[in-house]
Amino acid sequence: MRFVIIGGDASGMSAASRAKRNQPDMEVTVLEQTGDVSYSACGMPYNIAEPDREMDDLVVRHAHVFREKQGIDLRTGHRAETIDPVAKTVSGRTSGGEPFQLPYDKLLIATGASPIIPRLPGFDQDGVLGLKSLEDGRRLKQYIVDHQVKKVVIIGMGYIALEMCEALRSRDIEVAMVKPRPVLLPWMNEKLSAMVREEIDRHDVTMYPGHEVKAIEKADGGLKVVCSDLELDAQMVVVAIGVTPNSRIAEEAGIALGLQKSIAVDHTLRTSVEDIYSAGDCADAYHVVTGKKTWIPLALRANRGGWAVADTVTGKEVSLQGVAGTAVFKVFDLQVARTGLSVKEAKDAGFDPAEVVIESRSRAHAHPGSSTIGVQMVGDKRSGLLLGVQMVGREGAAHRIDAPAVALHAKLTVEAFSECDLAYAPPFSPVWDPMLTAATQLLKRM
Amino acid sequence: MRFVIIGGDASGMSAASRAKRNQPDMEVTVLEQTGDVSYSACGMPYNIAEPDREMDDLVVRHAHVFREKQGIDLRTGHRAETIDPVAKTVSGRTSGGEPFQLPYDKLLIATGASPIIPRLPGFDQDGVLGLKSLEDGRRLKQYIVDHQVKKVVIIGMGYIALEMCEALRSRDIEVAMVKPRPVLLPWMNEKLSAMVREEIDRHDVTMYPGHEVKAIEKADGGLKVVCSDLELDAQMVVVAIGVTPNSRIAEEAGIALGLQKSIAVDHTLRTSVEDIYSAGDCADAYHVVTGKKTWIPLALRANRGGWAVADTVTGKEVSLQGVAGTAVFKVFDLQVARTGLSVKEAKDAGFDPAEVVIESRSRAHAHPGSSTIGVQMVGDKRSGLLLGVQMVGREGAAHRIDAPAVALHAKLTVEAFSECDLAYAPPFSPVWDPMLTAATQLLKRM
Repeated sequence: MRFVIIGGDASGMSAASRAKRNQPDMEVTVLEQTGDVSYSACGMPYNIAEPDREMDDLVVRHAHVFREKQGIDLRTGHRAETIDPVAKTVSGRTSGGEPFQLPYDKLLIATGASPIIPRLPGFDQDGVLGLKSLEDGRRLKQYIVDHQVKKVVIIGMGYIALEMCEALRSRDIEVAMVKPRPVLLPWMNEKLSAMVREEIDRHDVTMYPGHEVKAIEKADGGLKVVCSDLELDAQMVVVAIGVTPNSRIAEEAGIALGLQKSIAVDHTLRTSVEDIYSAGDCADAYHVVTGKKTWIPLALRANRGGWAVADTVTGKEVSLQGVAGTAVFKVFDLQVARTGLSVKEAKDAGFDPAEVVIESRSRAHAHPGSSTIGVQMVGDKRSGLLLGVQMVGREGAAHRIDAPAVALHAKLTVEAFSECDLAYAPPFSPVWDPMLTAATQLLKRM
Repeated sequence: MRFVIIGGDASGMSAASRAKRNQPDMEVTVLEQTGDVSYSACGMPYNIAEPDREMDDLVVRHAHVFREKQGIDLRTGHRAETIDPVAKTVSGRTSGGEPFQLPYDKLLIATGASPIIPRLPGFDQDGVLGLKSLEDGRRLKQYIVDHQVKKVVIIGMGYIALEMCEALRSRDIEVAMVKPRPVLLPWMNEKLSAMVREEIDRHDVTMYPGHEVKAIEKADGGLKVVCSDLELDAQMVVVAIGVTPNSRIAEEAGIALGLQKSIAVDHTLRTSVEDIYSAGDCADAYHVVTGKKTWIPLALRANRGGWAVADTVTGKEVSLQGVAGTAVFKVFDLQVARTGLSVKEAKDAGFDPAEVVIESRSRAHAHPGSSTIGVQMVGDKRSGLLLGVQMVGREGAAHRIDAPAVALHAKLTVEAFSECDLAYAPPFSPVWDPMLTAATQLLKRM
């Protein structure tokens, strides 16, 4: 059997490796348009922060290992362009311009996502950069060196924008951030996002939320980001306003798309077309809280999806529960984490949400080194179910969020969660963990 | 209605405060034999570590606040000695020697636990100290100053012993630890306990497991801990071999005892005698994994138990799920955490356990500052249920343990846990969280 995979990053290479391990005699071919496979894309901002580190440190496993040790037919520089679901072939072109065509028995589309670059004047010029592929990262890092960049405008204020902001500030590069919406992190409870804002301000970053970017113009020795009521000078502009699924090849093959043009898949990651699967940032997923489709492009889901498809095509059908929307990121010294639904998402999904926000301490009463930890918790008044948690703090937020994430998978009520036997020791928590305090408070509103 | 509480620490004062809040006209009387109420006993080792801090920093709420602001009839220096369940009275003696007798409608026994001091020669002399009450802490801290203590032997190697070891080492006091059993932390997987041992060794602590202490003798200017095959000099000896429930008053009143002479209670914390409740370190609890009784004296359970009894006696009956055996402690720079059952505990409870131990990294591939994190996971081969997790690492172990703790309360299988959407960002975790890696590996053995 021939298993063809389009895309050689998290999802694609996970699938290739596992399929080959499950069934060593399977022919596994991966078509990757760039020269890079299997790298930690999420690590790029942290790599960019350190001038002396090679971007290639982020490669988790090199192409030759996949080829020689694992027997995977890995074809880099191979861009897949069309799928013929009737003839069951994939066609495309190599980086050298050579056309190719490949038959498949099972096909995995793991084409990922690309940074959204608005179709506005000046966004296509040198020095305006997005960040998704390793090649993007190399280009950006080199641009800083080549142009001795000391001043950057970041368009966008999502987690990649904020991680890039931290990376650039750590290299003592001046940063201004701009975006059209007036709210910093729109999904976030405003008390918590105020804590994030304070942390950013503390690091001398200028924030311009609520400004629509109209164009990027050339300016003296650099660039100028032009908004209707504002102009910002920069030597480099980072565009981090989000990503969009690379689903064109699927759409053209007649495969059904879902939210935000992601490739629609079922719990087994099958698309609407027989023998074609999709996983990773290009595919949608079920949300375990709403039971509905969602599109949250994150790394764990991509890796897990690759494994699941590999298991299924090698004969051990896997059905995935879905995602809880768990995410975490670092903003300077702050840990910002979430799982499940915000109040708005809960309402949109038909719940009757109650919300609480509490401030607690990261360590026990009188324990030195304690800092503030903010917890927001959302529950459904009708069913009593826990719906979501958001957390911000200097310590303990990143790993704490896993507990409510598990609770969401298990469909626990807020009351059941409030009774859980969570860990306590003075260096790590108050006796009542901040999450338990939040749950206890939330119960009173439900 | 008159609600009488014996014991004024975590459980007792939680109950008193909440009962008074729920029902302000209730007469709430607390009998506390010492002069201290509502303090963070768990904080004592960390307080002892700092010569300049007052032990009284650990008082969470002062007696006058309970009395004046909350209207609680708090009687310190009142030692309860007998309960008459027929007449419904508690009798005792004040610290001044005055007898007292008090009627009750509802009674809570929250007498806590006391450090076990073996009945061996020399254990009753000056400089041999246990650590449970704030008075114990004051005495120990003062002893260090008064005798310019530079050399201590700790008998015991449990978590209080290890926390005391760290506290004393941070004051540059020489520490030797001794105990009869040959294994450091008997409940712990040996690969993980080896990591703990290594951390202790790195801090120049001499460990003597497998040595039975026979006596403590006076020696030149200090003490000598005498084992059959070993003698250890010290200026001070800390006895931290465990605690025993203060249940004598309950036993003498005809109340049924449970494991290790703890006071047996049901899910509503009722004892075998009508209108008498028990909570905190003196009482037993149900284990959510085994469904059987257990006795794990920890702070969260004590506080939660106090609240539950207060709710019940003020008319809102509360039934508690029980404990998962979640515990965490710090050993120098290491976080050590557990929840649920060890392999032995799983076997003893009638499960058919499979176990896995993995080593992973605390941060993502190529992320700076990463360290080793060890995870042990136990599942039941018959039911597929997750039974327990142990974790050791320099970062992330303490808060991560809450996720499997929630999974135990929710009775998740290892497979369901392995599918949970846990948090990932390079500074905090590999893409596959170490717990997911453990779960995935464990599945193969089940």
